Amino acid sequence: MKDLSQVTVIGMGLLGASIALAVLHALPGVKVVGYSHRPSTRRKARRLLVNAEIDDSLSKSVSSADLVILATPISTFENILEQIAGSLPPGCIVTDVGSTKLLPTRWAHKVLPDNVHYVGSHPIAGSEQRGLEYARDDLLSDELCVLTATERTDRKALRRVRDFWSALGCIVKRMTPDEHDRIFANVSHLPYVMAVSLTNANTDKDLKCCGKGFIDTSRVASSPANIWADILVANSRNLSTAVGRAIRELEKLKHAVEKRDLTRITELLDAASRKRRSLISFRMKNKELLS
Amino acid sequence: MKDLSQVTVIGMGLLGASIALAVLHALPGVKVVGYSHRPSTRRKARRLLVNAEIDDSLSKSVSSADLVILATPISTFENILEQIAGSLPPGCIVTDVGSTKLLPTRWAHKVLPDNVHYVGSHPIAGSEQRGLEYARDDLLSDELCVLTATERTDRKALRRVRDFWSALGCIVKRMTPDEHDRIFANVSHLPYVMAVSLTNANTDKDLKCCGKGFIDTSRVASSPANIWADILVANSRNLSTAVGRAIRELEKLKHAVEKRDLTRITELLDAASRKRRSLISFRMKNKELLS
Repeated sequence: MKDLSQVTVIGMGLLGASIALAVLHALPGVKVVGYSHRPSTRRKARRLLVNAEIDDSLSKSVSSADLVILATPISTFENILEQIAGSLPPGCIVTDVGSTKLLPTRWAHKVLPDNVHYVGSHPIAGSEQRGLEYARDDLLSDELCVLTATERTDRKALRRVRDFWSALGCIVKRMTPDEHDRIFANVSHLPYVMAVSLTNANTDKDLKCCGKGFIDTSRVASSPANIWADILVANSRNLSTAVGRAIRELEKLKHAVEKRDLTRITELLDAASRKRRSLISFRMKNKELLS
Repeated sequence: MKDLSQVTVIGMGLLGASIALAVLHALPGVKVVGYSHRPSTRRKARRLLVNAEIDDSLSKSVSSADLVILATPISTFENILEQIAGSLPPGCIVTDVGSTKLLPTRWAHKVLPDNVHYVGSHPIAGSEQRGLEYARDDLLSDELCVLTATERTDRKALRRVRDFWSALGCIVKRMTPDEHDRIFANVSHLPYVMAVSLTNANTDKDLKCCGKGFIDTSRVASSPANIWADILVANSRNLSTAVGRAIRELEKLKHAVEKRDLTRITELLDAASRKRRSLISFRMKNKELLS
């Protein structure tokens, strides 16, 4: 990564801190600056990310950055963009790791000055854990990172952001913010909503008997509620469509079960089993190609 | 396990073969006999379970057994019970590992002679894999095994079945067949149905972008369709109630998302997150107590 001397990560949660660690590991010449609005998180970051510089001032943290990465909950983006807009050096690239891309793109275009470039990023990495202490420098490696661009996006900035995530080990894929938000409502926000609803549909008492099936199906429901609430609101229209589709699938199966229609039930179960097994083969093939 | 000289396992799939391996490992004096109706499975079993005796005849396989374990799909139980009823030695105990317990109990009481005892078992172990080749002697260790009993159940037989699963490393819990089928509709059959519906609600194309969230939430959808179709039909009434409850939870969340009601959304997500995290602590505490 030539032309990259400073990366600033705003937000020192699991993902922000993992990105900082990954840059320190993969791009040894690059200065890593971190910021968190909580003094306690900054103290923890100074202890755990010894080779990064943790700044007490948001505007100071970005004033010499070539690349600024927003890694805070989506609902804070607009406010942070407004706060840093005046301190960003000309030519600086701003990106974010938010799980929806339409709203961040709209805010960036509204708030950022013309001499600063915005590209949306969404690294598909994370865990149900939260916080700095779970950060790992390999959280992103071999994971997909979606970049979003519109006609307004500067092509050179887009290439630099692509090279940045590639250097961190990501498989980069490009789409529009619209396309991104539709697809991720289906493949990411919907599974989360299913996990939450499955958990809420059960009592604590019954759950004491559960096996690995429930544990895996519900895993993402343990994720931080505030981060996800933001995502669901930011993508409400696409998500509503996706949840409606899942409800129709559940009703199909419920109906077949009530009629004890073994042929129809088997048809629905088989379709899911085949689809998921072919997905797993696709992913395994992809990993093989990478390694 | 005194008084146990032969265990016969009918059905050499993942669970049946794992039980056979676990007995060979945990109860070295006990003779293990296996049966499968497929000649190819019997050949494979002879190769992989070298210390078990694999029988070509169903009735012969049970004729000297102290304990017979049915480990085939539920829909075959009634027929198998009819086939073996005349060959079981007096005092023999029959159990099964089916995922529902009302129907197997009803069939056993109808078909088995009075001098043979039936106890229902449901070891909560397995995986989305199928077949003998994935069998492991520790598949059951530290896993819950539910025993079901009614007023008709012989208390001595119940104790012997309890001691058997305990010897294999299971945590044994007792309930009625009714209670079992209601609870497992909620904590096991419902997660499976959610995973299937989530998978069917997505296109292959979109799924190429999915992350670990979808992969875990949908894992059980890869399970063998025929085994599950049987389970869903056998437990149709309880399952229909459970799916209805999940649909109502999805609708609550969908409604809040459409209204962009952040307070209500956060409330629902928080409830799930707290519930699941307390479940995980409960399970971890239990494992600690065991080890």
